[in-house]
Amino acid sequence: MKIYTVFVEPETSGNIGFLARSMKNFGLTDMVLINPCELKDDAYYQAMHAKEVVQNASIYDTLDEFFSDKEITSIVGTTGTPGGSYNIPRIPITPEELGKKMNVNGNIALLFGREGDGLTNEELEQCDVLVSIPTSDEYPIMNITHAATIIFYEIFKNKKSYPIDNLDVASYEDKHVLTQLSESIISKLDYPEHKERQANIIVKRIIGRAFIAGRESRTLRGTLKRINSRINNSHEE
Amino acid sequence: MKIYTVFVEPETSGNIGFLARSMKNFGLTDMVLINPCELKDDAYYQAMHAKEVVQNASIYDTLDEFFSDKEITSIVGTTGTPGGSYNIPRIPITPEELGKKMNVNGNIALLFGREGDGLTNEELEQCDVLVSIPTSDEYPIMNITHAATIIFYEIFKNKKSYPIDNLDVASYEDKHVLTQLSESIISKLDYPEHKERQANIIVKRIIGRAFIAGRESRTLRGTLKRINSRINNSHEE
Repeated sequence: MKIYTVFVEPETSGNIGFLARSMKNFGLTDMVLINPCELKDDAYYQAMHAKEVVQNASIYDTLDEFFSDKEITSIVGTTGTPGGSYNIPRIPITPEELGKKMNVNGNIALLFGREGDGLTNEELEQCDVLVSIPTSDEYPIMNITHAATIIFYEIFKNKKSYPIDNLDVASYEDKHVLTQLSESIISKLDYPEHKERQANIIVKRIIGRAFIAGRESRTLRGTLKRINSRINNSHEE
Repeated sequence: MKIYTVFVEPETSGNIGFLARSMKNFGLTDMVLINPCELKDDAYYQAMHAKEVVQNASIYDTLDEFFSDKEITSIVGTTGTPGGSYNIPRIPITPEELGKKMNVNGNIALLFGREGDGLTNEELEQCDVLVSIPTSDEYPIMNITHAATIIFYEIFKNKKSYPIDNLDVASYEDKHVLTQLSESIISKLDYPEHKERQANIIVKRIIGRAFIAGRESRTLRGTLKRINSRINNSHEE
Protein backbone atom coordinates (compact mmCIF):
# COMPACT_ATOMS: atom_id res chain seq x y z
CA MET A 1 0.00 0.00 0.00
CA LYS A 2 1.23 3.48 -0.83
CA ILE A 3 -0.50 6.51 0.65
CA TYR A 4 -0.26 9.91 -1.02
CA THR A 5 -1.26 12.93 1.02
CA VAL A 6 -2.69 15.44 -1.41
CA PHE A 7 -3.18 19.10 -0.56
CA VAL A 8 -5.49 20.63 -3.19
CA GLU A 9 -4.74 24.28 -3.95
CA PRO A 10 -3.21 25.25 -0.60
CA GLU A 11 -3.48 28.99 0.02
CA THR A 12 -1.04 29.49 2.90
CA SER A 13 2.42 28.05 2.63
CA GLY A 14 2.79 27.68 6.41
CA ASN A 15 0.03 25.08 6.25
CA ILE A 16 2.08 23.00 3.81
CA GLY A 17 4.75 22.88 6.50
CA PHE A 18 2.32 21.95 9.28
CA LEU A 19 0.91 19.19 7.07
CA ALA A 20 4.39 17.83 6.29
CA ARG A 21 5.29 17.66 9.96
CA SER A 22 2.10 15.78 10.87
CA MET A 23 2.62 13.41 7.96
CA LYS A 24 6.06 12.47 9.16
CA ASN A 25 4.82 12.14 12.76
CA PHE A 26 2.62 9.34 11.50
CA GLY A 27 5.05 7.75 9.07
CA LEU A 28 3.74 9.32 5.85
CA THR A 29 6.25 10.78 3.40
CA ASP A 30 4.56 11.21 0.01
CA MET A 31 3.18 14.72 -0.27
CA VAL A 32 1.40 15.93 -3.39
CA LEU A 33 0.52 19.57 -4.01
CA ILE A 34 -2.09 20.49 -6.60
CA ASN A 35 -1.69 24.01 -8.00
CA PRO A 36 -0.24 25.34 -4.73
CA CYS A 37 0.48 28.89 -3.62
CA GLU A 38 4.10 29.97 -3.69
CA LEU A 39 6.17 27.95 -1.21
CA LYS A 40 7.69 30.55 1.09
CA ASP A 41 10.12 30.08 3.97
CA ASP A 42 7.37 29.18 6.42
CA ALA A 43 6.52 26.04 4.42
CA TYR A 44 9.94 24.77 5.49
CA TYR A 45 10.02 26.45 8.89
CA GLN A 46 6.70 24.96 10.07
CA ALA A 47 7.74 21.52 8.80
CA MET A 48 10.48 21.50 11.45
CA HIS A 49 12.19 18.11 11.05
CA ALA A 50 10.04 17.18 8.06
CA LYS A 51 11.55 19.67 5.63
CA GLU A 52 12.42 16.88 3.20
CA VAL A 53 8.73 16.01 2.90
CA VAL A 54 8.11 19.50 1.49
CA GLN A 55 11.28 19.40 -0.64
CA ASN A 56 10.27 16.07 -2.17
CA ALA A 57 6.62 17.00 -2.72
CA SER A 58 5.24 16.24 -6.19
CA ILE A 59 3.51 19.21 -7.75
CA TYR A 60 0.75 18.94 -10.39
CA ASP A 61 -1.53 21.47 -12.05
CA THR A 62 -4.61 19.28 -11.75
CA LEU A 63 -5.84 16.31 -9.73
CA ASP A 64 -6.44 14.25 -12.86
CA GLU A 65 -2.79 14.54 -13.91
CA PHE A 66 -1.77 13.24 -10.51
CA PHE A 67 -4.34 10.39 -10.49
CA SER A 68 -3.10 9.03 -13.80
CA ASP A 69 0.60 9.68 -13.21
CA LYS A 70 0.67 7.74 -9.91
CA GLU A 71 -1.90 5.12 -10.97
CA ILE A 72 -4.16 5.87 -8.02
CA THR A 73 -6.52 3.03 -7.11
CA SER A 74 -8.51 4.60 -4.26
CA ILE A 75 -9.39 8.24 -3.67
CA VAL A 76 -10.32 9.26 -0.15
CA GLY A 77 -11.85 12.70 0.33
CA THR A 78 -12.21 14.62 3.56
CA THR A 79 -15.20 16.80 4.15
CA GLY A 80 -16.20 18.96 7.08
CA THR A 81 -19.77 19.23 5.88
CA PRO A 82 -21.46 15.87 5.56
CA GLY A 83 -24.45 16.17 3.28
CA GLY A 84 -28.03 15.48 4.26
CA SER A 85 -29.88 12.30 3.40
CA TYR A 86 -30.85 13.63 -0.01
CA ASN A 87 -27.24 13.91 -0.93
CA ILE A 88 -26.09 10.30 -1.18
CA PRO A 89 -22.63 10.97 -2.64
CA ARG A 90 -21.67 12.83 0.53
CA ILE A 91 -22.46 10.26 3.20
CA PRO A 92 -19.11 9.86 4.93
CA ILE A 93 -17.44 7.33 7.21
CA THR A 94 -15.54 8.20 10.38
CA PRO A 95 -11.74 8.45 10.54
CA GLU A 96 -11.79 5.37 12.76
CA GLU A 97 -13.66 3.35 10.15
CA LEU A 98 -11.23 4.60 7.51
CA GLY A 99 -8.25 3.54 9.62
CA LYS A 100 -9.65 0.06 10.04
CA LYS A 101 -10.30 -0.30 6.33
CA MET A 102 -6.99 1.03 5.09
CA ASN A 103 -5.02 -2.19 5.33
CA VAL A 104 -5.30 -2.80 1.63
CA ASN A 105 -2.99 -2.90 -1.31
CA GLY A 106 -2.95 -0.21 -3.94
CA ASN A 107 -2.14 3.46 -4.33
CA ILE A 108 -4.33 5.53 -2.09
CA ALA A 109 -4.81 9.29 -2.35
CA LEU A 110 -5.94 11.20 0.74
CA LEU A 111 -7.35 14.52 -0.47
CA PHE A 112 -7.41 17.62 1.69
CA GLY A 113 -9.10 20.71 0.34
CA ARG A 114 -8.42 24.40 0.25
CA GLU A 115 -8.20 26.19 3.61
CA GLY A 116 -11.28 28.28 2.93
CA ASP A 117 -13.61 26.15 0.84
CA GLY A 118 -12.44 22.55 1.16
CA LEU A 119 -12.97 20.25 -1.79
CA THR A 120 -15.44 21.15 -4.53
CA ASN A 121 -18.52 19.05 -5.22
CA GLU A 122 -16.88 17.79 -8.38
CA GLU A 123 -13.79 16.70 -6.48
CA LEU A 124 -15.90 15.00 -3.82
CA GLU A 125 -17.80 13.11 -6.48
CA GLN A 126 -14.53 11.68 -7.79
CA CYS A 127 -13.80 10.16 -4.38
CA ASP A 128 -14.33 6.49 -3.60
CA VAL A 129 -14.67 7.16 0.11
CA LEU A 130 -15.56 10.28 2.06
CA VAL A 131 -14.37 10.79 5.61
CA SER A 132 -15.79 13.26 8.07
CA ILE A 133 -14.52 13.97 11.58
CA PRO A 134 -17.17 13.99 14.31
CA THR A 135 -17.12 17.51 15.77
CA SER A 136 -19.24 19.83 17.85
CA ASP A 137 -22.32 21.14 16.03
CA GLU A 138 -21.56 24.58 17.39
CA TYR A 139 -18.29 24.97 15.51
CA PRO A 140 -17.60 22.06 13.16
CA ILE A 141 -15.09 23.73 10.85
CA MET A 142 -11.60 22.57 11.71
CA ASN A 143 -8.27 23.97 10.61
CA ILE A 144 -7.24 21.78 7.66
CA THR A 145 -3.92 20.56 9.07
CA HIS A 146 -5.52 19.69 12.42
CA ALA A 147 -8.23 17.72 10.60
CA ALA A 148 -5.62 15.93 8.49
CA THR A 149 -3.67 15.02 11.63
CA ILE A 150 -6.66 13.14 13.01
CA ILE A 151 -6.95 11.16 9.77
CA PHE A 152 -3.22 10.33 9.85
CA TYR A 153 -3.49 9.34 13.50
CA GLU A 154 -6.36 6.93 12.91
CA ILE A 155 -4.60 5.33 9.97
CA PHE A 156 -1.39 4.99 11.96
CA LYS A 157 -3.18 3.70 15.06
CA ASN A 158 -4.68 0.84 13.16
CA LYS A 159 -1.52 0.05 11.27
CA LYS A 160 0.61 -0.16 14.35
CA SER A 161 -0.90 -1.76 17.38
CA TYR A 162 -0.13 -0.10 20.66
CA PRO A 163 1.55 -0.44 23.15
CA ILE A 164 4.88 0.89 21.98
CA ASP A 165 7.72 -1.64 22.13
CA ASN A 166 9.03 -1.26 25.64
CA LEU A 167 5.65 -0.54 27.16
CA ASP A 168 4.48 -4.08 27.65
CA VAL A 169 1.10 -4.32 29.30
CA ALA A 170 0.87 -6.75 32.20
CA SER A 171 -0.28 -10.19 31.08
CA TYR A 172 -3.42 -11.85 32.35
CA GLU A 173 -1.24 -14.04 34.59
CA ASP A 174 0.64 -11.03 35.97
CA LYS A 175 -2.62 -9.39 36.93
CA HIS A 176 -3.96 -12.63 38.34
CA VAL A 177 -0.97 -12.87 40.69
CA LEU A 178 -1.61 -9.30 41.86
CA THR A 179 -5.26 -10.10 42.51
CA GLN A 180 -4.37 -13.29 44.42
CA LEU A 181 -1.84 -11.50 46.59
CA SER A 182 -4.36 -8.76 47.33
CA GLU A 183 -6.97 -11.34 48.25
CA SER A 184 -4.53 -13.05 50.56
CA ILE A 185 -3.77 -9.73 52.29
CA ILE A 186 -7.42 -8.80 52.55
CA SER A 187 -8.29 -12.22 54.00
CA LYS A 188 -6.09 -11.42 56.98
CA LEU A 189 -7.88 -8.19 57.84
CA ASP A 190 -10.72 -9.81 59.82
CA TYR A 191 -13.40 -8.31 57.65
CA PRO A 192 -16.95 -9.63 57.74
CA GLU A 193 -17.51 -11.79 54.67
CA HIS A 194 -19.45 -9.29 52.56
CA LYS A 195 -16.92 -6.55 53.24
CA GLU A 196 -14.07 -8.85 52.28
CA ARG A 197 -15.84 -9.70 49.05
CA GLN A 198 -16.45 -6.03 48.30
CA ALA A 199 -12.80 -5.11 48.93
CA ASN A 200 -11.65 -7.97 46.68
CA ILE A 201 -13.92 -6.87 43.85
CA ILE A 202 -12.79 -3.25 44.07
CA VAL A 203 -9.10 -4.13 44.05
CA LYS A 204 -9.61 -6.46 41.09
CA ARG A 205 -11.47 -3.74 39.18
CA ILE A 206 -8.82 -1.13 39.87
CA ILE A 207 -6.08 -3.47 38.71
CA GLY A 208 -8.08 -4.11 35.55
CA ARG A 209 -8.85 -0.49 34.86
CA ALA A 210 -5.37 0.92 35.47
CA PHE A 211 -3.73 -0.66 32.39
CA ILE A 212 -0.78 -1.71 34.51
CA ALA A 213 2.46 -2.20 32.61
CA GLY A 214 4.43 -5.41 32.98
CA ARG A 215 7.23 -3.55 34.70
CA GLU A 216 4.86 -1.89 37.11
CA SER A 217 3.21 -5.18 37.91
CA ARG A 218 6.55 -6.67 38.93
CA THR A 219 7.29 -3.84 41.36
CA LEU A 220 3.75 -4.03 42.69
CA ARG A 221 4.02 -7.78 43.11
CA GLY A 222 7.13 -7.33 45.24
CA THR A 223 5.39 -4.74 47.38
CA LEU A 224 2.29 -6.87 47.88
CA LYS A 225 4.42 -9.90 48.77
CA ARG A 226 6.19 -7.89 51.44
CA ILE A 227 2.91 -6.61 52.82
CA ASN A 228 1.47 -10.11 52.77
CA SER A 229 4.34 -11.60 54.76
CA ARG A 230 4.39 -8.73 57.28
CA ILE A 231 0.72 -9.15 58.02
CA ASN A 232 1.31 -12.85 58.37
CA ASN A 233 3.75 -12.11 61.17
CA SER A 234 1.34 -9.96 63.09
CA HIS A 235 -1.38 -12.53 62.67
CA GLU A 236 0.74 -15.40 63.95
CA GLU A 237 2.06 -13.62 66.99
CA MET B 1 -17.58 16.65 34.56
CA LYS B 2 -15.72 19.84 33.77
CA ILE B 3 -12.65 19.75 31.55
CA TYR B 4 -10.06 22.52 31.72
CA THR B 5 -7.61 22.75 28.84
CA VAL B 6 -4.39 24.10 30.32
CA PHE B 7 -1.58 25.51 28.20
CA VAL B 8 1.52 25.76 30.39
CA GLU B 9 3.79 28.67 29.50
CA PRO B 10 2.84 29.03 25.82
CA GLU B 11 5.58 30.75 23.88
CA THR B 12 3.78 31.70 20.64
CA SER B 13 0.47 33.47 20.82
CA GLY B 14 -0.72 32.03 17.50
CA ASN B 15 -0.70 28.61 19.13
CA ILE B 16 -3.11 29.84 21.78
CA GLY B 17 -5.49 30.66 18.93
CA PHE B 18 -5.03 27.29 17.21
CA LEU B 19 -5.67 25.55 20.53
CA ALA B 20 -8.84 27.59 21.16
CA ARG B 21 -10.24 26.71 17.75
CA SER B 22 -9.62 22.98 18.23
CA MET B 23 -11.14 23.12 21.69
CA LYS B 24 -14.34 24.60 20.34
CA ASN B 25 -14.39 22.11 17.44
CA PHE B 26 -14.72 19.42 20.11
CA GLY B 27 -17.04 21.22 22.48
CA LEU B 28 -14.45 22.41 25.00
CA THR B 29 -14.63 26.00 26.23
CA ASP B 30 -12.57 26.35 29.41
CA MET B 31 -9.07 27.47 28.55
CA VAL B 32 -6.44 28.10 31.20
CA LEU B 33 -3.11 29.78 30.49
CA ILE B 34 -0.23 29.44 32.94
CA ASN B 35 2.29 32.29 32.75
CA PRO B 36 1.67 32.82 29.02
CA CYS B 37 3.53 34.94 26.50
CA GLU B 38 1.89 38.22 25.50
CA LEU B 39 -1.41 37.59 23.69
CA LYS B 40 -0.98 39.29 20.33
CA ASP B 41 -3.45 39.64 17.47
CA ASP B 42 -2.72 36.19 16.08
CA ALA B 43 -4.02 34.56 19.28
CA TYR B 44 -7.43 35.88 18.20
CA TYR B 45 -6.89 35.56 14.46
CA GLN B 46 -5.95 31.86 14.55
CA ALA B 47 -8.88 31.13 16.86
CA MET B 48 -11.22 32.06 13.99
CA HIS B 49 -14.74 31.51 15.37
CA ALA B 50 -13.42 30.58 18.81
CA LYS B 51 -12.18 34.05 19.78
CA GLU B 52 -14.35 34.02 22.92
CA VAL B 53 -12.44 30.97 24.17
CA VAL B 54 -9.27 33.08 24.19
CA GLN B 55 -11.06 36.12 25.60
CA ASN B 56 -12.50 34.07 28.47
CA ALA B 57 -9.28 32.19 29.25
CA SER B 58 -8.26 32.12 32.92
CA ILE B 59 -4.68 33.16 33.49
CA TYR B 60 -2.55 32.05 36.47
CA ASP B 61 1.10 32.50 37.39
CA THR B 62 1.53 28.90 38.52
CA LEU B 63 -0.14 25.53 38.06
CA ASP B 64 -0.63 25.11 41.80
CA GLU B 65 -2.68 28.31 41.99
CA PHE B 66 -4.93 26.99 39.25
CA PHE B 67 -5.26 23.50 40.79
CA SER B 68 -6.46 24.88 44.10
CA ASP B 69 -8.60 27.69 42.67
CA LYS B 70 -10.62 25.36 40.43
CA GLU B 71 -10.59 22.39 42.83
CA ILE B 72 -9.08 20.05 40.28
CA THR B 73 -9.71 16.36 40.97
CA SER B 74 -7.73 14.73 38.15
CA ILE B 75 -4.63 15.98 36.38
CA VAL B 76 -3.93 14.53 32.95
CA GLY B 77 -0.52 15.24 31.44
CA THR B 78 0.52 14.81 27.84
CA THR B 79 3.99 13.64 26.98
CA GLY B 80 5.63 13.02 23.66
CA THR B 81 8.44 10.99 25.12
CA PRO B 82 7.32 7.89 26.94
CA GLY B 83 10.10 6.73 29.21
CA GLY B 84 12.09 3.57 28.77
CA SER B 85 12.21 0.75 31.27
CA TYR B 86 14.29 2.74 33.73
CA ASN B 87 11.76 5.51 33.87
CA ILE B 88 8.71 4.18 35.67
CA PRO B 89 6.93 7.49 36.33
CA ARG B 90 6.39 8.07 32.63
CA ILE B 91 4.41 5.02 31.56
CA PRO B 92 1.48 6.53 29.66
CA ILE B 93 -1.90 5.43 28.35
CA THR B 94 -3.16 6.09 24.81
CA PRO B 95 -5.54 8.93 23.90
CA GLU B 96 -8.13 6.25 23.13
CA GLU B 97 -7.87 4.74 26.60
CA LEU B 98 -8.12 8.23 28.09
CA GLY B 99 -11.26 8.97 26.08
CA LYS B 100 -12.90 5.78 27.29
CA LYS B 101 -12.14 6.54 30.92
CA MET B 102 -13.18 10.17 30.94
CA ASN B 103 -16.88 9.59 31.57
CA VAL B 104 -16.71 10.65 35.17
CA ASN B 105 -17.68 13.60 37.27
CA GLY B 106 -15.12 15.95 38.67
CA ASN B 107 -12.84 18.75 37.54
CA ILE B 108 -10.29 17.48 35.09
CA ALA B 109 -7.21 19.39 33.95
CA LEU B 110 -5.65 18.48 30.61
CA LEU B 111 -2.10 19.83 30.65
CA PHE B 112 -0.22 20.75 27.49
CA GLY B 113 3.36 21.85 27.80
CA ARG B 114 5.59 24.49 26.31
CA GLU B 115 6.10 24.36 22.53
CA GLY B 116 9.79 23.63 22.87
CA ASP B 117 10.20 21.54 25.97
CA GLY B 118 6.79 20.17 26.90
CA LEU B 119 6.04 19.61 30.57
CA THR B 120 8.85 19.41 33.11
CA ASN B 121 9.54 16.21 35.06
CA GLU B 122 8.15 17.89 38.15
CA GLU B 123 4.92 18.77 36.35
CA LEU B 124 4.64 15.23 34.97
CA GLU B 125 5.06 13.80 38.46
CA GLN B 126 2.09 15.86 39.64
CA CYS B 127 -0.13 14.18 37.05
CA ASP B 128 -2.54 11.38 37.89
CA VAL B 129 -2.54 10.11 34.33
CA LEU B 130 -0.07 10.49 31.49
CA VAL B 131 -1.18 10.26 27.88
CA SER B 132 1.09 9.70 24.93
CA ILE B 133 0.09 9.66 21.27
CA PRO B 134 1.43 6.71 19.30
CA THR B 135 3.64 8.20 16.58
CA SER B 136 6.36 7.21 14.17
CA ASP B 137 9.69 6.45 15.83
CA GLU B 138 11.42 8.44 13.13
CA TYR B 139 9.84 11.75 14.09
CA PRO B 140 7.70 11.49 17.20
CA ILE B 141 7.66 15.17 18.20
CA MET B 142 4.30 16.68 17.26
CA ASN B 143 3.27 20.29 17.10
CA ILE B 144 1.55 20.95 20.43
CA THR B 145 -1.82 22.07 19.05
CA HIS B 146 -1.98 19.12 16.67
CA ALA B 147 -1.25 16.75 19.54
CA ALA B 148 -3.91 18.44 21.68
CA THR B 149 -6.44 18.08 18.87
CA ILE B 150 -6.04 14.31 18.89
CA ILE B 151 -6.68 14.22 22.64
CA PHE B 152 -9.80 16.42 22.25
CA TYR B 153 -11.01 14.22 19.39
CA GLU B 154 -10.69 11.01 21.38
CA ILE B 155 -12.48 12.53 24.37
CA PHE B 156 -15.26 13.87 22.15
CA LYS B 157 -15.58 10.61 20.24
CA ASN B 158 -16.14 8.64 23.41
CA LYS B 159 -18.39 11.22 25.03
CA LYS B 160 -20.68 11.06 22.06
CA SER B 161 -20.98 7.31 21.91
CA TYR B 162 -20.99 6.51 25.62
CA PRO B 163 -23.28 8.94 27.40
CA ILE B 164 -22.13 10.01 30.83
CA ASP B 165 -23.73 8.27 33.78
CA ASN B 166 -23.57 9.44 37.31
CA LEU B 167 -20.39 7.77 38.37
CA ASP B 168 -18.88 10.05 40.97
CA VAL B 169 -15.12 10.09 40.75
CA ALA B 170 -13.00 10.18 43.89
CA SER B 171 -12.05 13.71 44.86
CA TYR B 172 -8.49 14.96 44.89
CA GLU B 173 -8.52 14.67 48.69
CA ASP B 174 -9.89 11.12 48.57
CA LYS B 175 -7.09 10.08 46.29
CA HIS B 176 -4.55 11.96 48.35
CA VAL B 177 -5.60 9.99 51.43
CA LEU B 178 -5.19 6.73 49.48
CA THR B 179 -1.74 7.78 48.32
CA GLN B 180 -0.69 8.81 51.84
CA LEU B 181 -1.91 5.55 53.35
CA SER B 182 -0.05 3.59 50.68
CA GLU B 183 3.09 5.58 51.33
CA SER B 184 2.80 4.92 55.02
CA ILE B 185 2.46 1.17 54.38
CA ILE B 186 5.34 1.14 51.91
CA SER B 187 7.58 3.04 54.33
CA LYS B 188 7.30 0.11 56.72
CA LEU B 189 8.55 -2.47 54.22
CA ASP B 190 12.27 -1.82 54.73
CA TYR B 191 12.86 -0.98 51.10
CA PRO B 192 16.03 0.80 50.01
CA GLU B 193 15.20 4.45 49.32
CA HIS B 194 15.02 4.29 45.52
CA LYS B 195 12.82 1.20 45.65
CA GLU B 196 10.49 2.90 48.08
CA ARG B 197 10.26 5.93 45.83
CA GLN B 198 9.56 3.73 42.83
CA ALA B 199 6.84 1.80 44.62
CA ASN B 200 5.23 5.06 45.78
CA ILE B 201 5.18 6.48 42.28
CA ILE B 202 3.68 3.31 40.80
CA VAL B 203 0.91 3.20 43.38
CA LYS B 204 0.12 6.90 42.81
CA ARG B 205 -0.02 6.36 39.05
CA ILE B 206 -2.28 3.33 39.34
CA ILE B 207 -4.63 5.22 41.63
CA GLY B 208 -4.66 8.07 39.10
CA ARG B 209 -5.09 5.92 36.06
CA ALA B 210 -7.90 3.78 37.40
CA PHE B 211 -10.35 6.70 37.72
CA ILE B 212 -11.49 5.35 41.06
CA ALA B 213 -15.07 6.13 42.02
CA GLY B 214 -15.89 7.83 45.32
CA ARG B 215 -17.53 4.69 46.66
CA GLU B 216 -14.56 2.56 45.72
CA SER B 217 -12.14 4.99 47.33
CA ARG B 218 -13.97 4.73 50.65
CA THR B 219 -13.76 0.93 50.70
CA LEU B 220 -10.14 1.06 49.61
CA ARG B 221 -9.34 3.59 52.33
CA GLY B 222 -10.74 1.23 54.95
CA THR B 223 -8.69 -1.65 53.60
CA LEU B 224 -5.47 0.37 53.48
CA LYS B 225 -6.06 1.64 57.03
CA ARG B 226 -6.40 -1.90 58.28
CA ILE B 227 -3.28 -2.98 56.43
CA ASN B 228 -1.41 0.03 57.77
CA SER B 229 -2.29 -0.69 61.38
CA ARG B 230 -1.53 -4.40 61.07
CA ILE B 231 1.91 -3.72 59.71
CA ASN B 232 2.43 -1.21 62.47
CA ASN B 233 1.80 -3.97 64.97
CA SER B 234 4.31 -6.29 63.39
CA HIS B 235 6.85 -3.52 63.29
CA GLU B 236 6.45 -2.54 66.92
CA GLU B 237 6.52 -6.03 68.31
